[in-house]
Amino acid sequence: MDQTQLQKMDETVLDWLDDISHLVMKRVQQRMQIETKSSHRDLVTNVDREVEQYYVQHIRTFDPEAQILGEEGFGDAVKSTEGRIWYVDPIDGTMNFVKQQDEFATMVAVYEDGEPVMAWIMDITKHDVVHGGPDFGVFHNDEPLHAPTDTALKDGLIILSGARLLYEEKGFTELAKSALGYRVYGSAGISYLHVLTGKAVAYLSRMRPWDFAAGVALAKSLGLKVGTIDEHPLNMLVSGSVLVATEKTFDDIKLIQKEWT
Amino acid sequence: MDQTQLQKMDETVLDWLDDISHLVMKRVQQRMQIETKSSHRDLVTNVDREVEQYYVQHIRTFDPEAQILGEEGFGDAVKSTEGRIWYVDPIDGTMNFVKQQDEFATMVAVYEDGEPVMAWIMDITKHDVVHGGPDFGVFHNDEPLHAPTDTALKDGLIILSGARLLYEEKGFTELAKSALGYRVYGSAGISYLHVLTGKAVAYLSRMRPWDFAAGVALAKSLGLKVGTIDEHPLNMLVSGSVLVATEKTFDDIKLIQKEWT
Repeated sequence: MDQTQLQKMDETVLDWLDDISHLVMKRVQQRMQIETKSSHRDLVTNVDREVEQYYVQHIRTFDPEAQILGEEGFGDAVKSTEGRIWYVDPIDGTMNFVKQQDEFATMVAVYEDGEPVMAWIMDITKHDVVHGGPDFGVFHNDEPLHAPTDTALKDGLIILSGARLLYEEKGFTELAKSALGYRVYGSAGISYLHVLTGKAVAYLSRMRPWDFAAGVALAKSLGLKVGTIDEHPLNMLVSGSVLVATEKTFDDIKLIQKEWT
Repeated sequence: MDQTQLQKMDETVLDWLDDISHLVMKRVQQRMQIETKSSHRDLVTNVDREVEQYYVQHIRTFDPEAQILGEEGFGDAVKSTEGRIWYVDPIDGTMNFVKQQDEFATMVAVYEDGEPVMAWIMDITKHDVVHGGPDFGVFHNDEPLHAPTDTALKDGLIILSGARLLYEEKGFTELAKSALGYRVYGSAGISYLHVLTGKAVAYLSRMRPWDFAAGVALAKSLGLKVGTIDEHPLNMLVSGSVLVATEKTFDDIKLIQKEWT
């Protein structure tokens, strides 16, 4: 896509995010319907569904040829990364949304033939957005965002999935101990915002494609390093233990990983 | 102290917090001097020291009879809880302050003969303050704050000290697994704000008096439960594994604790 098309796409999605943040902040004042999915810790609300339906409806009009891969299943059963795919996570960090009414995000990413084109992550209560793509540049709200300082693991904060750390997914404990400190925020979007803006040197979690598509796209666009710490390479259609980090921290983690594999 | 005196104290300290938040946000833009204390993870900056000096100077004028117990040592060598003591943590979450320029707090508490009188916790970047005392009521900025819903551990988020969880202080892993979820924020003040405003059902960490004095005072004032999970009762002059929780969660934790002791 050319600059005009990317610009148009960015403005369009930023408008959607405005609508969605207003909608969500209004719903927070009302009574929510909360259901569980795979376990009592895997929550979904009427708001997750309403926001995904908003996305699907608007994407169908804006980009009718594209496929949509969304957390709540209102999109398509995507079988291949060929062509254009919109990844949608309507409310990322639903437990924070339900319990805190804070510290949750909405995420959108566009990929073409498996490669990132554009992505958006918004901290909804702060109305704080990081957006952009490899051929467009990355912006923090209206300001150009530059690559974070290349900081080593021992000098920075790593953000980890709480569940993976607690249930001892291989390596998580070693990484937490090797970092200057670690944090657990309960939302991939909030965690990615920390890494993209240089507040943390890495984020690692086991995630599904809609959880990591936007973070990976923006991280690559900023020159951060992206990979997996399991035996499989990054696959935009399946779950993976996805790592986004500064270059130095990525290399530190790969060295530590050699000792545990 | 009577209501007029409490009101005067509250207004005075809120004015100090205004000054301090402006000072700190200005210093964030400048080059900080960062030093380590007991370990490479125990940081102090010129800003921590400057803010504590501000507090000590203003407390000496406002309440010349009182003793001051401050993290950076500009106060007194307090030997007894008799009389009035001001507990001061100028920058709580110094690692977040240095690495994130976000998610840190400043905390002040006034105790008389070991009992809480008034306390203040401010999230500095959000300029968000919870303040009050047992005979004054608790306020979230200008609004009266009421006791959070009495939620059980299995239905709420627990906030834990990352280091205590990682280095397996007795019981921390069990508590994280028993809760609906856990979070690690790296600042006692930020963690207390979550519990006081009902975003989390408990906060547990091993802390020094200036880390827990304000949180304990405000929690007691709101009707939350406060105690330790180590063998020693809460002591306002020494470190302890201090727990602040809703009543149900406190009881849940005490039941779980029976199994590990």
